[in-house]
Amino acid sequence: MSRILIFDTTLRDGEQAPGFSMQPDAKLRMARALAALRVDVIEAGFAASSPADAQSIMDIAAGVEGPVICALARATRPDILAAVTALAPAARKRVHVFIGTSPLHREAKLRMTREQVLEAIRSSVAFARDHFDDVEFSAEDAIRTERDFLAKTLSVAAAEGATTLNVPDTVGYTTPEEITDLFRFLDGAVDRSDGVIFSTHCHDDLGMAVANSLAAIRGGARQVECAVNGIGERAGNCALEDVVMALRTRHDFYGLDTNVDSTRIMAASRTLAQITNAPPPRNKAIVGANAFAHESGIHQHGVLQNRATYEIMKPEDIGLVTESIVLGKHSGRHALAARARALGVVLEGEALDRTFAAFKLVADEVGIVDTAKLAALLAESSTHRPQALWKLTKVDIRSPVSANSWPVARVELDHGTRGRVTDIASAPGALDAAFAAVSQMMGTAARVDSLEMQYIAADPDQPAPDGQGASVLVEMTVEVDGEVYAGRARARDILPCCVSAYIDAVSNAQAIKAIAAARVEQEQAA
Amino acid sequence: MSRILIFDTTLRDGEQAPGFSMQPDAKLRMARALAALRVDVIEAGFAASSPADAQSIMDIAAGVEGPVICALARATRPDILAAVTALAPAARKRVHVFIGTSPLHREAKLRMTREQVLEAIRSSVAFARDHFDDVEFSAEDAIRTERDFLAKTLSVAAAEGATTLNVPDTVGYTTPEEITDLFRFLDGAVDRSDGVIFSTHCHDDLGMAVANSLAAIRGGARQVECAVNGIGERAGNCALEDVVMALRTRHDFYGLDTNVDSTRIMAASRTLAQITNAPPPRNKAIVGANAFAHESGIHQHGVLQNRATYEIMKPEDIGLVTESIVLGKHSGRHALAARARALGVVLEGEALDRTFAAFKLVADEVGIVDTAKLAALLAESSTHRPQALWKLTKVDIRSPVSANSWPVARVELDHGTRGRVTDIASAPGALDAAFAAVSQMMGTAARVDSLEMQYIAADPDQPAPDGQGASVLVEMTVEVDGEVYAGRARARDILPCCVSAYIDAVSNAQAIKAIAAARVEQEQAA
Repeated sequence: MSRILIFDTTLRDGEQAPGFSMQPDAKLRMARALAALRVDVIEAGFAASSPADAQSIMDIAAGVEGPVICALARATRPDILAAVTALAPAARKRVHVFIGTSPLHREAKLRMTREQVLEAIRSSVAFARDHFDDVEFSAEDAIRTERDFLAKTLSVAAAEGATTLNVPDTVGYTTPEEITDLFRFLDGAVDRSDGVIFSTHCHDDLGMAVANSLAAIRGGARQVECAVNGIGERAGNCALEDVVMALRTRHDFYGLDTNVDSTRIMAASRTLAQITNAPPPRNKAIVGANAFAHESGIHQHGVLQNRATYEIMKPEDIGLVTESIVLGKHSGRHALAARARALGVVLEGEALDRTFAAFKLVADEVGIVDTAKLAALLAESSTHRPQALWKLTKVDIRSPVSANSWPVARVELDHGTRGRVTDIASAPGALDAAFAAVSQMMGTAARVDSLEMQYIAADPDQPAPDGQGASVLVEMTVEVDGEVYAGRARARDILPCCVSAYIDAVSNAQAIKAIAAARVEQEQAA
Repeated sequence: MSRILIFDTTLRDGEQAPGFSMQPDAKLRMARALAALRVDVIEAGFAASSPADAQSIMDIAAGVEGPVICALARATRPDILAAVTALAPAARKRVHVFIGTSPLHREAKLRMTREQVLEAIRSSVAFARDHFDDVEFSAEDAIRTERDFLAKTLSVAAAEGATTLNVPDTVGYTTPEEITDLFRFLDGAVDRSDGVIFSTHCHDDLGMAVANSLAAIRGGARQVECAVNGIGERAGNCALEDVVMALRTRHDFYGLDTNVDSTRIMAASRTLAQITNAPPPRNKAIVGANAFAHESGIHQHGVLQNRATYEIMKPEDIGLVTESIVLGKHSGRHALAARARALGVVLEGEALDRTFAAFKLVADEVGIVDTAKLAALLAESSTHRPQALWKLTKVDIRSPVSANSWPVARVELDHGTRGRVTDIASAPGALDAAFAAVSQMMGTAARVDSLEMQYIAADPDQPAPDGQGASVLVEMTVEVDGEVYAGRARARDILPCCVSAYIDAVSNAQAIKAIAAARVEQEQAA
């Protein structure tokens, strides 16, 4: 079999981890994103663990088409019956029965002998087969189970009709070499009929979940259990996006395919991040904000010559449309000239030298030079006078007098050439009211797409210049006419900081639009 | 050689990635954390890339003792001279010279022939050796370089006096099997004198940086290039904490040691997170908030019986003191009883059943049951009446009239038994003023330790119950009498949400202290 089945456990092992709990409606929404991604199996929950989990499995079983819907169960009749009920509405269904098989699990947790464990497998898998055609059996903590006994447990499960035999590295302990060797051993040692497949389920406690899953495949596994953004117990499960893109990018090495539509990866990752309020870190493989971004001058020069110098995948492959060159203090003149060209400004010779020197000063000061700052630099460099930019000077909120009225924001802005401007607006929330007032004055309507804030505690070793302690950092994105623009600000107070970041993002949008319009004008004049 | 050298590039490859730029004073602070961690080499920057980077290398060279301080340089005399100047104050120093060797880099980026590349290596390494005893050479994009030519470049570098030969997987493309095989090949094919070692530098684009680094070690590498929290270009470098703890935890398999003091890992990770405003995700191996947390009932039951059932490392090993059992909707009665016991309340028989049922209802509703909510549940369960908890009913800010005065916050709270209470306070920032007013009313002074906010955009598919769109989620920690307590809140507006989260955190602190006091009283009475 040259196809690897993708068994997604975002909604079970993932959801079970602290900070990743999801409400039933959110789980249903995520299950739909997984179906669009074309995973083979969705593990929707653990029916016996709580009434809410059982209900949620039932909602997914009734509302999601395509993948097999699976529910987890301990090796007991009540757990399996809970799965039967929860999965009743599913067109394609599977029960996933597990029991601990390692000495630690048998002795410390279950207090059962080997023979008792085998008997529990026998009776539970047989019972499961009475209710399901598709039964998966997991030997929990398989990696730390004696090899002969592990082979025995899997043979017993297969004899009773289990169709998938899962060999989890429950504690994230193994290495690629070990796990390839283990699967090769099991392939020879486990009695089973044709069509019964081995499955791998790796945890990332030592940072090797992805490599171990792929190494298990090299050893003969044909199902990978994984989760979007790599969420799951402790350090999480194997990341779905990593294993799928590794198989695809290194098809020369693995020679195996999945049924996943990789162009839906970013959508699934963002859906999960939104539901759980936990975006993956910038440096997450495949779906992190930096995965396709290049800041350093040497890398940027390479990428501008030929993307393949520093990229092994295309952003389009995962459904990402991106501006992959980030300008910062490590960027060189090649990158600056390329970004200026993209904005319609040709920089050469002395103009490039002058702009690059100004750019380096700004970059050393603020880190990332976004498009608004770059546009201002380019304008300064060509006109020899600073570009007017909006600045927040004051924001006040008047709270509603009655429960039925809305808060009113009064915002005062300072414009480089037009001076001070004030306006008011109201909205259900104070923040949205302030944003509306800014939009009225700047003449651009924008919708907030994301906003993240961090409180930066006063550092006793490094007192702030004004001696007044803590500050906040806000990073946000807004949508204007269907395009997304970013803004950021740092300030002592939360509301002014959010409003300044909003102004930064809208200024960004205006600068890019103005340059694009100027280009169109030039082209028409030419 | 049975010791693996840890070459940390947090301040060079890490700092070079978008979003991870650091100011010179922050770089110096991080370098001190790395020295405390006892890494072997600190790559402090790329001297020729900007004046600020050169200055920062010099500050670290002058101010940090212990590790070798290293600077990056292209294979040119000006770059190497920039490194000579920047590293002048260092007691122990290294220059790291690199050039692209793969066909893509030679042809698309450098426009050089093989012979020109070899000549550049010859002259630059010889020049570097005139100024340094310790010279590292990197064949950039080594993984995609023809094997024979790669061996040739490394032999040339060794002949000119390079003491470390680095073989980077610049684009994060390789697999563990491939890289072990490559290092074994190089070990035989590269001419070099005794003491010249091979180094590995892996990127995480396919999620395999840690496994690939360890596989390179299996193939003969004796230096690993890595970064704290796995930061670096694109998906980042091999995470220092992962490779160090994998070597330690799987000493049975690798048989190799490092000189790192693992108990300083959490401190280094937190220093970096604070400097870059980028905490690692909850599910990051070793240093993520969940790495040592267990929520699900089955896992908790196992951990309570014997930690080893689900843990392969001890939190103390990385310098973490933690409450590893998190109560949530997946928790079972064993975990509830254990946490209640830790708070001094013995739950058995009918009392356990009643409290567990109440607990499950709360857990299904809010996800994580923190200590304040648990304390309230335990109080209800023993007294049969609900515990009074503080709730925010109103918060207003009066802005300062002059530039020299502070904003004033008026806060109204509702207390379960005492009814409404109002107080005012002023501080340099509105947020701190509101927190001060809350502290006055609740009678507990607290210092904000961290505060994170996320803006949750209105979901067009799922309108909020009140039809009013976006909301914010705030998670914060506060310090009371030297202990840290967490709080969270979700609301439509940013200021009330922060204040509610603060109230939650302070309530948490009070509940824990009250239970501890009751226990002391009982013990004295007994």
